[in-house]
Amino acid sequence: MTVGARIAILNPNTTAAFTERLAALGRRLAAPDTIILARSPLHGVASVECHVDEAVATLGLLGVVAEEEAFGTNAYVLACFGDTGIEAVREIAAGPVVGMTEAALSAASIVADHFCIVTLPPRTVIHAERVVRRLGLAYRCRVRAIDVAVDDCVALDRSLLDAMIAESRRGLEQDGAAAVILGCAGLSELVAPMREALGVPVIEGVGIALKLAEGLVANGVATSKRGAYAAPPRGWPPA
Amino acid sequence: MTVGARIAILNPNTTAAFTERLAALGRRLAAPDTIILARSPLHGVASVECHVDEAVATLGLLGVVAEEEAFGTNAYVLACFGDTGIEAVREIAAGPVVGMTEAALSAASIVADHFCIVTLPPRTVIHAERVVRRLGLAYRCRVRAIDVAVDDCVALDRSLLDAMIAESRRGLEQDGAAAVILGCAGLSELVAPMREALGVPVIEGVGIALKLAEGLVANGVATSKRGAYAAPPRGWPPA
Amino acid sequence: MTVGARIAILNPNTTAAFTERLAALGRRLAAPDTIILARSPLHGVASVECHVDEAVATLGLLGVVAEEEAFGTNAYVLACFGDTGIEAVREIAAGPVVGMTEAALSAASIVADHFCIVTLPPRTVIHAERVVRRLGLAYRCRVRAIDVAVDDCVALDRSLLDAMIAESRRGLEQDGAAAVILGCAGLSELVAPMREALGVPVIEGVGIALKLAEGLVANGVATSKRGAYAAPPRGWPPA
Amino acid sequence: MTVGARIAILNPNTTAAFTERLAALGRRLAAPDTIILARSPLHGVASVECHVDEAVATLGLLGVVAEEEAFGTNAYVLACFGDTGIEAVREIAAGPVVGMTEAALSAASIVADHFCIVTLPPRTVIHAERVVRRLGLAYRCRVRAIDVAVDDCVALDRSLLDAMIAESRRGLEQDGAAAVILGCAGLSELVAPMREALGVPVIEGVGIALKLAEGLVANGVATSKRGAYAAPPRGWPPA
Amino acid sequence: MTVGARIAILNPNTTAAFTERLAALGRRLAAPDTIILARSPLHGVASVECHVDEAVATLGLLGVVAEEEAFGTNAYVLACFGDTGIEAVREIAAGPVVGMTEAALSAASIVADHFCIVTLPPRTVIHAERVVRRLGLAYRCRVRAIDVAVDDCVALDRSLLDAMIAESRRGLEQDGAAAVILGCAGLSELVAPMREALGVPVIEGVGIALKLAEGLVANGVATSKRGAYAAPPRGWPPA
Amino acid sequence: MTVGARIAILNPNTTAAFTERLAALGRRLAAPDTIILARSPLHGVASVECHVDEAVATLGLLGVVAEEEAFGTNAYVLACFGDTGIEAVREIAAGPVVGMTEAALSAASIVADHFCIVTLPPRTVIHAERVVRRLGLAYRCRVRAIDVAVDDCVALDRSLLDAMIAESRRGLEQDGAAAVILGCAGLSELVAPMREALGVPVIEGVGIALKLAEGLVANGVATSKRGAYAAPPRGWPPA
Repeated sequence: MTVGARIAILNPNTTAAFTERLAALGRRLAAPDTIILARSPLHGVASVECHVDEAVATLGLLGVVAEEEAFGTNAYVLACFGDTGIEAVREIAAGPVVGMTEAALSAASIVADHFCIVTLPPRTVIHAERVVRRLGLAYRCRVRAIDVAVDDCVALDRSLLDAMIAESRRGLEQDGAAAVILGCAGLSELVAPMREALGVPVIEGVGIALKLAEGLVANGVATSKRGAYAAPPRGWPPA
Repeated sequence: MTVGARIAILNPNTTAAFTERLAALGRRLAAPDTIILARSPLHGVASVECHVDEAVATLGLLGVVAEEEAFGTNAYVLACFGDTGIEAVREIAAGPVVGMTEAALSAASIVADHFCIVTLPPRTVIHAERVVRRLGLAYRCRVRAIDVAVDDCVALDRSLLDAMIAESRRGLEQDGAAAVILGCAGLSELVAPMREALGVPVIEGVGIALKLAEGLVANGVATSKRGAYAAPPRGWPPA
Repeated sequence: MTVGARIAILNPNTTAAFTERLAALGRRLAAPDTIILARSPLHGVASVECHVDEAVATLGLLGVVAEEEAFGTNAYVLACFGDTGIEAVREIAAGPVVGMTEAALSAASIVADHFCIVTLPPRTVIHAERVVRRLGLAYRCRVRAIDVAVDDCVALDRSLLDAMIAESRRGLEQDGAAAVILGCAGLSELVAPMREALGVPVIEGVGIALKLAEGLVANGVATSKRGAYAAPPRGWPPA
Repeated sequence: MTVGARIAILNPNTTAAFTERLAALGRRLAAPDTIILARSPLHGVASVECHVDEAVATLGLLGVVAEEEAFGTNAYVLACFGDTGIEAVREIAAGPVVGMTEAALSAASIVADHFCIVTLPPRTVIHAERVVRRLGLAYRCRVRAIDVAVDDCVALDRSLLDAMIAESRRGLEQDGAAAVILGCAGLSELVAPMREALGVPVIEGVGIALKLAEGLVANGVATSKRGAYAAPPRGWPPA
Repeated sequence: MTVGARIAILNPNTTAAFTERLAALGRRLAAPDTIILARSPLHGVASVECHVDEAVATLGLLGVVAEEEAFGTNAYVLACFGDTGIEAVREIAAGPVVGMTEAALSAASIVADHFCIVTLPPRTVIHAERVVRRLGLAYRCRVRAIDVAVDDCVALDRSLLDAMIAESRRGLEQDGAAAVILGCAGLSELVAPMREALGVPVIEGVGIALKLAEGLVANGVATSKRGAYAAPPRGWPPA
Repeated sequence: MTVGARIAILNPNTTAAFTERLAALGRRLAAPDTIILARSPLHGVASVECHVDEAVATLGLLGVVAEEEAFGTNAYVLACFGDTGIEAVREIAAGPVVGMTEAALSAASIVADHFCIVTLPPRTVIHAERVVRRLGLAYRCRVRAIDVAVDDCVALDRSLLDAMIAESRRGLEQDGAAAVILGCAGLSELVAPMREALGVPVIEGVGIALKLAEGLVANGVATSKRGAYAAPPRGWPPA
């Protein structure tokens, strides 16, 4: 295995509590010789809940990734449901950039025939469906939502867990889902109690994305620089 | 990370040279504390080149996996392009079962917009397309084939490499492909020279699948036993 | 019309009661000069309810078909919902091989805009959806299931009929279905009472498949031996 | 089997030579106790080569079918590539109405993985694709065309055969087709020489549709009168 | 902008009240220098509620359009939900022909992510879905229906409005719809009260189609005479 | 018709020559009482040729639109192929926001069965395909590209025209295209010579989008504020 792969977990929002959780999760899961960083933009939005938030967050991410490239970072995990700005990040990254949403979908597709996403708040269904469609999995995955703001996820209190479990149950019963994807970063503490309550795999995308990023580095697979993800013609930051 | 994960790489054919290559590849890529085995059925087909071969190989795989389950194996990598018999294996496996084809497609989708598979022989295009369609990626991935039998891949000689490169070039030029997936197990030695010749990522699925399997175990994601992949009603081997 | 076409109805399970029903159905529906046989493997599974069962049943089918080929059988009807092992059978058959599921779907598509399948048990929804997707009809056909085991279909008792009617009604009301496909072989006795109760076409695939097989023979249409369904490279049984 | 099923082959154009060919084909293929009629409108278009032709032909068909319904005709075969007016005919028919295009596609899907249609003239590709899309088979079937007018098909001369073979060969080589569908009614005489030249199944839809219509009648499957194909609210001909 | 564009709104049914409403709507919305006509066939059906009605209406439309072509009409709006006969009209029209259904769908797609159609009566769902599928929007648009006959729409009474609002609410709540398309021509008076009640855009296709027709004329975009919409080979009316 | 609709044409790049062309085009096509503005960000990118450019341009657009909203602008035309940032703009706009790409696709779908886009440079194919897929038109529209940078479009010289015509011809011959969409803003001067050379409709999206925007305003159709395009939770610019 590659020695000393440096992988940056990118939190596109500025909420430090989330970034810290992501760092802790990453360090717990990473291989012994992987160097894990969790980074977020200095300025931006406290959470990503709409396309305007995505626009702000994407520019912030580009700044962070430009710095990381200078350090020779080997791979990135994009830790925001909907994989905000991932195409732009791919253009300036040499190594692979793995979105938590696409990683979660790949994992779910491996362990279940039909599955569902439970995201929040309801207006972000469009962002999740963007990735589901991009991977052609709409026929196996329904996107469901609970009416909770991302800010309310900081506390991880009981009502959040209850709402996630109730909506997941609807997915199991109405959609034939056999696995559930957590539709928000930073909720890895919910995995165990939800799996316990539901009896099916509960998938948290950041952890999967991290191991997939390690795997791509180990296999020498980097972002293709032919076509859509080639370096920007004017570079970044623009000259 | 899970200590001592035991992962079996399943070669559905009986050609020992392939099984050995898979074991070597697995050991090179696995995390330090992963125990890697490469296994194949005692009896069966020398290569999997048609649906009849798949039928034979699948029963062989079930025998191997039943043994591995008794050892508490944590995850499986199915090392046959087309992911032969993967649904049946999932039914008797507790841990995740990752196909080399689905893993390669997930990797390609991360590093390129459009990509192609180069498989062999031409009659197996239907097997590759089965997985591409299962993942909904047909609009981004064309399956191409070269007229070489699987048996001829044992030697890994220059003509095989040349044919792979030539067909890949057609994919880059005619399909807008920006990455190439090797459509056969046991060809990892071709990755470096093809990447060199083509200038795009060349993806070998077994290596990706192995790291993805490690990642699923590390994240506690197992095969869902609700619905399609529940244990067979009469068990295995049947009582 | 071809004189003396010999058509074998293949029951992939070993339950003689089903095989007998299939033979009776076939003889009732066949043209006067068609020779009908219903055959099943000597050893195998009592019913096909999962992918593991399919793996076992497929090998059994190959043995039966190899024998039939020696007799010059002109066509085959695969009498198992999900069309178990049909690709492998096609490889060793010279004549056409018609699955009951694909035949039922073609019939339903002719007489209704939207329709539904009612299959059993629920875990087999994935098998039915495989065929629905293969034919591109998912947008017109929803797969529904009742919680009955295949074994319980032997008796054909009133509770089975009631469950089929109740689930079909949900299809008519919730999916806009205008026809119902019976999602299990051997249930042709249910057709009349269901049609009576529901007032829409109720389609049993084996009977349709048989007439379609006769039609293909009469028209001189055999399995293509170019590409995916060519004879296995090593023959069958393997030399 | 139903005794004395009466099946009408509907030729939507007014060219008697085609109607006669259809009658001859039908009588050759029908079961001994099937009564075959081939009918066409008295007034209308000499061939159906565009949507305007379809509009004229459809009204003509409705007149013919209204008469046939009075005779208790059991089923219809629509003998025009593109299945002109089939939805309207279904509304006034009690029995099943089988289009030659949909029947040919069902047959091709049974004997080949990928296949192609060779139709004529090129402007009618849209009509063929309408049926291919309706059946969800676009991913397996490409529509090709030769630059010949329908009128020129009356003579069935050598240049027509040559053009069909040449275009079919392009389908085999470029699309991976393993079977060819004749994209025009009345060309059954081309089947044998094309099959000879190409070495793959060549499918003529009228013959398949006839046997499928017999099969639907034998199985008691009629047009659903719930939903889309219910009788017209004002009857036909309108009161 | 083109001076004096002449645009004909085509009502395929013979109900004068609808034609008058369409003329009034068109004149209210048209640019000052657009000449608006609303026309319907002299003979035909009082409303278009099935495929048989469509067959009759299409021939009527062709007569009207042939007359308009002689006047040099620049564009057409097809004012019937389902865009009855639009392909045939395109063949004999020089200018663009805009269907109210396709126009409504384009508008809805601009202002909402998911949306629904509320059409009537239920049997016409197939006609609406034909256009939705033609535009590839089935994944964002569900077709709903209320059990009201088109004739009952003449009066535009309160029960119609109530039924439309109730069904639309189900679309907002169950389908995630964020806009509603009125699935019948002649209902523009419902737009304001429905928008008021629902709080989302309510889209009436005729008005949108008219402005789109003006826009196509202004941009010099006419019906392509290459391929599918070329003039009929025998002209119209046929020589 | 609405009196005095104010419509802003948004050029996401900072190249004044393009903005001026857009203004001229808009004023030529707009209704007499429409007030047309063409606006671009003060700072940003000279052209939008990759996802990083899109990220920069989107933020610039949001600034412009926030100002326009204060002026009560009624609708927007997004004049960048790929409809850069359109979802974010919709969130802060009250009126409709029409992308040039989606408008061009709607127009092409009205006048042709199959059509193609000719965009530039090749790496932006992914941006065009994003919109084609969003509208579900991939089965009718192929995206083609010529190897010219956006900057080189300023001069509109003969080589650009020649390249566009040559690539369009390939679309007509190889894809069955019957209309061509110009895949870049600011090229309206190419429409006439290309139409002349090709004999099919050549569609420039900005002009179509402008008339469609007028039409939506005239019909009272605004951006839905339920669901995906609701105002950003924290407003814009963020409080």
